Amino acid sequence: MTNRFIHDDFLLQNITAKKLYHDVAAPLPIIDYHNHLSPNQILTDKNFKNITQIWLAGDHYKWRAMRTCGVDEKFITNDATDKEKFLAWAAVVPKTVKNPLYHWTHMELKNPFGITDRLLNGETAEKIWDECNEMLQSPEFSVRSLLKRNNVQVVATTDDPVNPLTEHSNFRKEEQTDFLMVPTFRLDMGMNIEDRGNFRKWTRFLSVLSGKDITTFKDLIEALKIRHDYFHQLGCRASDHGIEEPYSEPFTDEQLEETFSKIMTGKDLTTGDIRSYKSAFLYYCGLMDHEKGWVFQLHIGAIRNNSSRMMKKLGPDSGFDSMGDAEIARPLARLLNRLDSENNLPKTILYNINPRDNELMATMAGNFQDGSVPGKIQHGPPWWFLDQKDGIEKQIESLSNMGILSEFIGMTTDSRSFLSFSRHDYFRRILCNIIGQDVETGLIPDDENLLHTLIRKICYQNVKNYFNYGE
Amino acid sequence: MTNRFIHDDFLLQNITAKKLYHDVAAPLPIIDYHNHLSPNQILTDKNFKNITQIWLAGDHYKWRAMRTCGVDEKFITNDATDKEKFLAWAAVVPKTVKNPLYHWTHMELKNPFGITDRLLNGETAEKIWDECNEMLQSPEFSVRSLLKRNNVQVVATTDDPVNPLTEHSNFRKEEQTDFLMVPTFRLDMGMNIEDRGNFRKWTRFLSVLSGKDITTFKDLIEALKIRHDYFHQLGCRASDHGIEEPYSEPFTDEQLEETFSKIMTGKDLTTGDIRSYKSAFLYYCGLMDHEKGWVFQLHIGAIRNNSSRMMKKLGPDSGFDSMGDAEIARPLARLLNRLDSENNLPKTILYNINPRDNELMATMAGNFQDGSVPGKIQHGPPWWFLDQKDGIEKQIESLSNMGILSEFIGMTTDSRSFLSFSRHDYFRRILCNIIGQDVETGLIPDDENLLHTLIRKICYQNVKNYFNYGE
Amino acid sequence: MTNRFIHDDFLLQNITAKKLYHDVAAPLPIIDYHNHLSPNQILTDKNFKNITQIWLAGDHYKWRAMRTCGVDEKFITNDATDKEKFLAWAAVVPKTVKNPLYHWTHMELKNPFGITDRLLNGETAEKIWDECNEMLQSPEFSVRSLLKRNNVQVVATTDDPVNPLTEHSNFRKEEQTDFLMVPTFRLDMGMNIEDRGNFRKWTRFLSVLSGKDITTFKDLIEALKIRHDYFHQLGCRASDHGIEEPYSEPFTDEQLEETFSKIMTGKDLTTGDIRSYKSAFLYYCGLMDHEKGWVFQLHIGAIRNNSSRMMKKLGPDSGFDSMGDAEIARPLARLLNRLDSENNLPKTILYNINPRDNELMATMAGNFQDGSVPGKIQHGPPWWFLDQKDGIEKQIESLSNMGILSEFIGMTTDSRSFLSFSRHDYFRRILCNIIGQDVETGLIPDDENLLHTLIRKICYQNVKNYFNYGE
Repeated sequence: MTNRFIHDDFLLQNITAKKLYHDVAAPLPIIDYHNHLSPNQILTDKNFKNITQIWLAGDHYKWRAMRTCGVDEKFITNDATDKEKFLAWAAVVPKTVKNPLYHWTHMELKNPFGITDRLLNGETAEKIWDECNEMLQSPEFSVRSLLKRNNVQVVATTDDPVNPLTEHSNFRKEEQTDFLMVPTFRLDMGMNIEDRGNFRKWTRFLSVLSGKDITTFKDLIEALKIRHDYFHQLGCRASDHGIEEPYSEPFTDEQLEETFSKIMTGKDLTTGDIRSYKSAFLYYCGLMDHEKGWVFQLHIGAIRNNSSRMMKKLGPDSGFDSMGDAEIARPLARLLNRLDSENNLPKTILYNINPRDNELMATMAGNFQDGSVPGKIQHGPPWWFLDQKDGIEKQIESLSNMGILSEFIGMTTDSRSFLSFSRHDYFRRILCNIIGQDVETGLIPDDENLLHTLIRKICYQNVKNYFNYGE
Repeated sequence: MTNRFIHDDFLLQNITAKKLYHDVAAPLPIIDYHNHLSPNQILTDKNFKNITQIWLAGDHYKWRAMRTCGVDEKFITNDATDKEKFLAWAAVVPKTVKNPLYHWTHMELKNPFGITDRLLNGETAEKIWDECNEMLQSPEFSVRSLLKRNNVQVVATTDDPVNPLTEHSNFRKEEQTDFLMVPTFRLDMGMNIEDRGNFRKWTRFLSVLSGKDITTFKDLIEALKIRHDYFHQLGCRASDHGIEEPYSEPFTDEQLEETFSKIMTGKDLTTGDIRSYKSAFLYYCGLMDHEKGWVFQLHIGAIRNNSSRMMKKLGPDSGFDSMGDAEIARPLARLLNRLDSENNLPKTILYNINPRDNELMATMAGNFQDGSVPGKIQHGPPWWFLDQKDGIEKQIESLSNMGILSEFIGMTTDSRSFLSFSRHDYFRRILCNIIGQDVETGLIPDDENLLHTLIRKICYQNVKNYFNYGE
Repeated sequence: MTNRFIHDDFLLQNITAKKLYHDVAAPLPIIDYHNHLSPNQILTDKNFKNITQIWLAGDHYKWRAMRTCGVDEKFITNDATDKEKFLAWAAVVPKTVKNPLYHWTHMELKNPFGITDRLLNGETAEKIWDECNEMLQSPEFSVRSLLKRNNVQVVATTDDPVNPLTEHSNFRKEEQTDFLMVPTFRLDMGMNIEDRGNFRKWTRFLSVLSGKDITTFKDLIEALKIRHDYFHQLGCRASDHGIEEPYSEPFTDEQLEETFSKIMTGKDLTTGDIRSYKSAFLYYCGLMDHEKGWVFQLHIGAIRNNSSRMMKKLGPDSGFDSMGDAEIARPLARLLNRLDSENNLPKTILYNINPRDNELMATMAGNFQDGSVPGKIQHGPPWWFLDQKDGIEKQIESLSNMGILSEFIGMTTDSRSFLSFSRHDYFRRILCNIIGQDVETGLIPDDENLLHTLIRKICYQNVKNYFNYGE
């Protein structure tokens, strides 16, 4: 019975959906345009030593679930052995039923491990630990093999401007690779001026790497441009910004320089200083992206590290983040309009963390479509907490209603794990299921050409044209 | 196959729904209580010269979709020929699948054009262009014929106080008309004091039409009352307000006069001035409506003309608007309570642009129901971006859960196009489908009297009693 | 036909759902951890004199529906006879179709009255009035009999600190009771410093009951602690707070004492004073709860008594409340983190009034799970306006997606009426239906152990372990 859980037609609840998925969606390659994979592990084609290392280490979704189920931190991030941690996780899995973790877990046991005859739980854990670990030692389970097995064509990692990109550079020098690895220009460190000490350290690195003295805000932007150019050479075609709010206050050069000087000399910043600085910083990043035809990615609205107690113990990205509800519409319109009014608005992807903003975001994207690029401003894909069946369905439906679904660039994993490529499979099944259902209830005509074009565009063609990686 | 798309049972997915729709909903007349149709075109019973003129001109929903699909502005609002524009639109239609435009397009090709054997796309465009244009020349496709064919009983247009209402006046003088045409008192110009020049021009017109010198805020309100009276004579029973927020700040007469004097003498206004003024203006409009038993319509939350670049080129209402997310609940409660506490709250319709506020709005309406008029405060219908299957379903469900669905006044087109009356058909099908589904899953008892009463009230009887047009 | 409305499988739309409900959920006892029942009526085992008294008196949901349907206040809260009021309500019932009142009404006519062969409406009202009133005189319809018939194990009432708890104390002295009755520490009076007169009166009561002079804020908190201890002795294990916003401003002892002194001497309070005070008050309540292992319940976001006209006539809780939309995420995170950072965060239940905040709240709960107690921070259950099929489904789905459904403590009635225990039945049916549906569409494996454990935990075991009443 349980082996019928993650079967070939998982999530495909009607005949049209099954045909669309198997005939059209499934065979398409994957362009994973935003993730947090390790360039080093890709370069070295790493084999992980056990399933805890490849599956649980760094996965704050699982950590959070374990804490909610009353598991002691020892078995989560602390000093238990890898095996103990895996067993603790396995015992929690049945409690995650209806959470996406339950689907992901069993999809990832199927792909790549081929385990479909059991559910993971306290009883099956020991045997699955042994089986997976054995497989993980073989060349078929190296990082590159996993990517190849998933038909991945492009992997876009997420990289700070002060990352020397050594791995990217070396990877490009290889004669033949099964896929493209490109960096993404991630600028959060340049926005995080609340932590002046860290920021100054970061500017020193930036100065070294760019060969540019940084004593003013203007210098900072110029140094970033030098790195922007270098990232471009290594195939980068997008920047990325994790912002609590869409900063778009007014600013003047004088103000910016004054703020910058306060940061560099350790003086206190006012809220006004911080907001003007961030507003300007975002604007200049948009400018650079527009100049080179890059994509400007805005991840908006997460409030992070809410437990300062756990932040002290574990640092960021440990499972203590949640959805914000600050005002978005007017400030985001202001930011985008500031760029657009000077014809400098790059292709832009708007990601929202709070699903209540789906419709707002989809209509915001519509404000700045100008006919120059199909789907120039994108809403979605569903991000972080929204990356599950409901979240995917809601984003697809709201985008459909408020915008043009057929110009959507589709899914990305946003993941730290090499086992997460089944998220694309998950998305494609859900997409085909929605479309199939609409066809079968008569909401969409049963026109093969129409349907195949739609699926092909969303799963592959749009994203290929939008980023133009490798061109 | 494609001719089975928009068939007689389109959207009706169960037997009860089919019976309710065909037996009860479909034959009911239409009272279209809020739209943007041209009184002049109605008076003169215009025949449009081609389908671009009647269907694409002024339809910023379609323009926006075309821009999103990468169509050049030339083919949207610019100097391409009408035929080129139609062909450009037709090529975009298949890409709008799952957007309401796709349904509307094919519903409107069916009614009035009778085209159900083809989908509109690049290949079928040329022939459809010819066929429709030929039909449009015949008397059966004049504006009044279209209204009659759709069983329209009342058309409430949207009119500025400085509109002399010549067409309305002349139309009323006709001996026999198939339907009633009435104006609606739309006051946005009186709120838009940010543009002082335009506002002053508007007050001069208002002064001329009302025969009242306007040198103070008090004069302004009195001049408006004179027009309010005149609109009433011509059958008007509702005012309408497009507001970004529900302004309800405190104000004093002195403040208002000072602000008014600043406007008239070209002095700068503070944000405080503007908000107090708007708060007072809305309040006085509510007072007037209450005095005459009118309906106070509040369209809340759109942020408009977000692309200043395109605003300069095309002006307002060109497809660059989106959903806001400012705080609504406390200010709106304050506005309504200000009127209610003095027993001056008129019948009121609350329209929200952001669907996340559906439930908030439905409970807000409940705060001020006082037993004097059934459904005195209305939530909905779904407006603008929400006027599609999902939006209609969500509004019906949230109103059902938070209020009393059976007192709902139902749909209005809010449209600029004479082809949009199938929106009522769309709404009625969706309503019947929801009710039918609930019956078939046992959530509503299968009681014919109960169900017929419900459908009849929502589609026709409630709106008739609520506005009392023609009485 | 109508007798098939509220049948044994009401709301259970698939075979798995039916089995889960009848085999697992239905037989489980009820722990009603938050309601507004009268301890006195429980102590005295009251028989109500007619159905208006037990069903309509105090039920502002029904009042609001009647007003919306145009019923005069005379028949709602005013001087009509009980019978007239019942007839007026009965005539409105058919108009409430699709509102939860329609389901609740007929579920409550079934349980306890056994009326399933008729729908309530104007025609059936008279006979139902007679039948129910007769039943209500018999011992089987006394308050305690009703609780026993519904398999209620614990009733947690809602009580002000200045409530002497005489009834609770006397009830505990009884030798044998079929259920436990415990108080809940409800602190709204201590927060409502806007009404200084009332607040001072309340502190005088508090001073008398606690035997503690209250001249400072510190005294106030100490007096509350004395009552907190006493409540604990009588079985209380939770506090409760109805807050418009999650107050979490900074405060100092000096500020608090100054504000307190202003209150006591009748001086005006600034908004800052009020917010700091409320922030501190909430914080200290959390501290007390943590010390004793209590549950800290936050009911967040209702805006109350919006019609000041009706507030003057009828007082609070009369049906003039609605959903707010103030910012929640950052202030709530600050409040919880303030407690958490000192290891003082108690078990906490987050209730939101606006359904758009479901996902935000579920992720907020996740921020502060620390492995110490399973489901330490709870989101939900759906509260007030959200306590219906849609609201329950949405809360279950959002909690599932964002958190761990299997650690959820499930439903509570939050009701003033002894007829409301069918709300638990309602919830359980909806829960089983969701789970059954997921099983049948292959989203959850059909694993009996997994499913039974899940249902049993949510309906009974989790809440039992979480509150630990009677231990």
